[in-house]
Amino acid sequence: MRYGEYVEKCRKVADVQNAMAVLQWDQEVNMPPKGAEVRSNQLATLSVIAHEWSTDPAYGALLQELNEDDSLSWEQKRNVQESLRDYKRRLSYDKHFVEQLSRTVSRAFNAWQQARKKNDFNVFAPALTEIVALKRIEAGLVGYEQHPYNALMDEYEPGATVRMVDRLFSGVKGSLSTLLEKVRNLPRPVNVFAGKQFAKQAQWDLCIGFLKQMGYDFDAGRQDYAPHPFCINFSSGDVRVTTRANESDVFDMLSSSIHEGGHALYEQGLLPENYGLPAGYAISLGVHESQSRLWENNVGRSEAFWKANFEKLKQAFPEQCAGLTARDAFVANNLVQPSLIRVQADELTYHFHIMIRYELEKALITGDLQVKDLKEAWNASYKKYLDIEVPDDNRGVLQDIHWAHGSIGYFATYSLGSFYAAQYYRQAEKDIPGLAGLIEQGDFLPLKQWLNEKLHRYGRLYGAEEICTRITGEGLNYDHFHRYLEDKLSRVYIG
Amino acid sequence: MRYGEYVEKCRKVADVQNAMAVLQWDQEVNMPPKGAEVRSNQLATLSVIAHEWSTDPAYGALLQELNEDDSLSWEQKRNVQESLRDYKRRLSYDKHFVEQLSRTVSRAFNAWQQARKKNDFNVFAPALTEIVALKRIEAGLVGYEQHPYNALMDEYEPGATVRMVDRLFSGVKGSLSTLLEKVRNLPRPVNVFAGKQFAKQAQWDLCIGFLKQMGYDFDAGRQDYAPHPFCINFSSGDVRVTTRANESDVFDMLSSSIHEGGHALYEQGLLPENYGLPAGYAISLGVHESQSRLWENNVGRSEAFWKANFEKLKQAFPEQCAGLTARDAFVANNLVQPSLIRVQADELTYHFHIMIRYELEKALITGDLQVKDLKEAWNASYKKYLDIEVPDDNRGVLQDIHWAHGSIGYFATYSLGSFYAAQYYRQAEKDIPGLAGLIEQGDFLPLKQWLNEKLHRYGRLYGAEEICTRITGEGLNYDHFHRYLEDKLSRVYIG
Repeated sequence: MRYGEYVEKCRKVADVQNAMAVLQWDQEVNMPPKGAEVRSNQLATLSVIAHEWSTDPAYGALLQELNEDDSLSWEQKRNVQESLRDYKRRLSYDKHFVEQLSRTVSRAFNAWQQARKKNDFNVFAPALTEIVALKRIEAGLVGYEQHPYNALMDEYEPGATVRMVDRLFSGVKGSLSTLLEKVRNLPRPVNVFAGKQFAKQAQWDLCIGFLKQMGYDFDAGRQDYAPHPFCINFSSGDVRVTTRANESDVFDMLSSSIHEGGHALYEQGLLPENYGLPAGYAISLGVHESQSRLWENNVGRSEAFWKANFEKLKQAFPEQCAGLTARDAFVANNLVQPSLIRVQADELTYHFHIMIRYELEKALITGDLQVKDLKEAWNASYKKYLDIEVPDDNRGVLQDIHWAHGSIGYFATYSLGSFYAAQYYRQAEKDIPGLAGLIEQGDFLPLKQWLNEKLHRYGRLYGAEEICTRITGEGLNYDHFHRYLEDKLSRVYIG
Repeated sequence: MRYGEYVEKCRKVADVQNAMAVLQWDQEVNMPPKGAEVRSNQLATLSVIAHEWSTDPAYGALLQELNEDDSLSWEQKRNVQESLRDYKRRLSYDKHFVEQLSRTVSRAFNAWQQARKKNDFNVFAPALTEIVALKRIEAGLVGYEQHPYNALMDEYEPGATVRMVDRLFSGVKGSLSTLLEKVRNLPRPVNVFAGKQFAKQAQWDLCIGFLKQMGYDFDAGRQDYAPHPFCINFSSGDVRVTTRANESDVFDMLSSSIHEGGHALYEQGLLPENYGLPAGYAISLGVHESQSRLWENNVGRSEAFWKANFEKLKQAFPEQCAGLTARDAFVANNLVQPSLIRVQADELTYHFHIMIRYELEKALITGDLQVKDLKEAWNASYKKYLDIEVPDDNRGVLQDIHWAHGSIGYFATYSLGSFYAAQYYRQAEKDIPGLAGLIEQGDFLPLKQWLNEKLHRYGRLYGAEEICTRITGEGLNYDHFHRYLEDKLSRVYIG
């Protein structure tokens, strides 16, 4: 049967892509330095195979045929539709464009590294100008309605539009600004963990315990050290996380472990029988991020979490925690402080970092902003929204790797993740009786199972907005995030 | 240019095969249990790609054309000849045969595992009968001169013949039997390390030190724990070893580390510019094994080695080594005792284990022995050559995995390894002034460099016998091994 042939092809492409993922994981976690050069050739060879197979005209014809086959079940049809969508997107890039982008990205990445060394945006600007020009061409190749930036976001967040994201960020500009203002005027609680040292191994053991508590399956994964925390999967039976140690901040590894663990629960929750099919992949970066942030923030920074787990922290670090309480850990995890670096930002100011990037990217793509004026625009935005001066380019416009990688249209997915997380968590509280009480008792499994049942198992059978509406009764709504944060901060900042 | 095209193709095949090697390494070292099923599919998908590319008729035509191209350099010609040899061997297997063998091997492996559980050869015998029948067919497909077993050995040890190996083992049957007899009649020195415990981490640290002492490049490799020690490489810049811990035998991890380190030096010594070409691969299993055994036995079990390193052992294990000397470590590493299990055998009796298997395999392939009579023949051989009774099948005919994997023709390469090692080491002693003295001072690098220069760098540009003759002035000669062992044992067993 032709559908079986399609499944077979999808799985073979997935095999090659997952083999690449193993090589990439190994590269980050284990590879000795002299292995690097050949490794990148090996990855390139596999990448060409996966690309050729997934753009093969015979595969395209098969998809077209199946797309008109009325004998398919609903789920089969959905798989075919999504595969056809991917196929068309891939075909829209002509070979010349792909080569040009790839060359430019290599050059841009080098230029960015050089620029970082010299702390000088001007070193990166010419390459970024080329990237932006190519991204504008890409928007045209892919095609879009209403706004060229939609074509770029669509790669990371299918279905997301400027109209939708603008609406979300109007909440950030409006009510979140007001909340920030309010918090800044309240007395700042003290972080009583600051300035202490926390041995790496004890942190690691705690993190393993928290991952188990979340329901992360160590028979289908593992945690390792790597320079940057990430989650990667080779099948739903092999989903790995990495973390890093910071002995002067006990919450650093912990929040990164829980964050990556949240990503991992999504991948472990995909159904093995859907391996290689759209139903076997996560919906989008935003929805993926919703899972990591739900666990990191809504769970891991909650009062209930620390009521459940403060004793463990105290057992691991008795001296450092002497005289402290669960509330101290809760407070230390939720202090708001405008700062320069996105990846170190708190839950509130984080979204200004994102919104600034989103606005700047949109303006670059429409042509309303030129790369030569980007640094100035960046610094002005940080002054306007966070009231801070950017002292140099490394702590400003050069801080993220995304543009150097040619990724434009990506940043908004981080905020979408937080917003979806709040909305899903709100719904979980409604659906799971006494959720906060369960969390307080350290029983996280009902939440994990709820996510498995409601979201994870479907993979891409539903789109992001579609499944959000199925689960919560409405599309993504910023208000849930705002209410969640306002409520939490009112308990942190007792003014 | 056509030669460039050939190089390109070789490299792409190597990329895929090395990607498989990364997946296999990961499988042994890191993979969580639930990753196993999909991982084997991923490996199968890559394997099909590598097979299709390397049996592509267009590739064959290219090789034929280049093989007649007089403009190629000597080295280019050798590469093409070796590639053509591999191509023809692969083509000699028809698809039907390959599928049948693959199915039979899967079944045989399961049957062997079942047989091991029940400690009953009869459970494995039917599957092994099928394997033998297929291997006889294989010999016919591949083609051979003089003896069908030659066709099977050729896969592991190109150029090796029954005539050559019989001649080597006549030394084992003759003079090695006499030496064994002699040693058995001497008073047995005491292993003063027996019955003590040695902490795993201190063993590990010692091994890392010994690997560095050998010149193993940790910027182009790493050591990890795995259930079975092995060496694997993804390029000459990424050559990894694994080991395992045995806290009741301090020399177990140590000899396995040095053994795998010897393999690794060969792979690290191949020239990066020959990646993917025959010149970038090791010659044969026997020559590979010569490198591991040269380091493990000729170096690592020598008096000079222990003079250099006993203090390190003592520092790592001061209590266990109190009152002991370098000579105690030398003696403990060289005691001879006939035993049942090949992988635990000493340097002398080891070759009887191999010869027995070699003789039995040959007889199975010619039809002089039937699988139903194999166990009896096995037990009779152990009685005859080692004067020991085999108490059960697990410690007898079921002990090795090789036959269950369909590997027949493999075992002799282990003995070839020891014999080549002794011959090369003898030559190194001639070529490197004061070698024993250097080793005693812990300076192993001149030996490593000699192996790099004389052997490693050439890859498959010379055959095993050819390069042996180039380096030592003669083909493989059992006498060197005999003299080496007799000399060493005369210093261990002071009768």
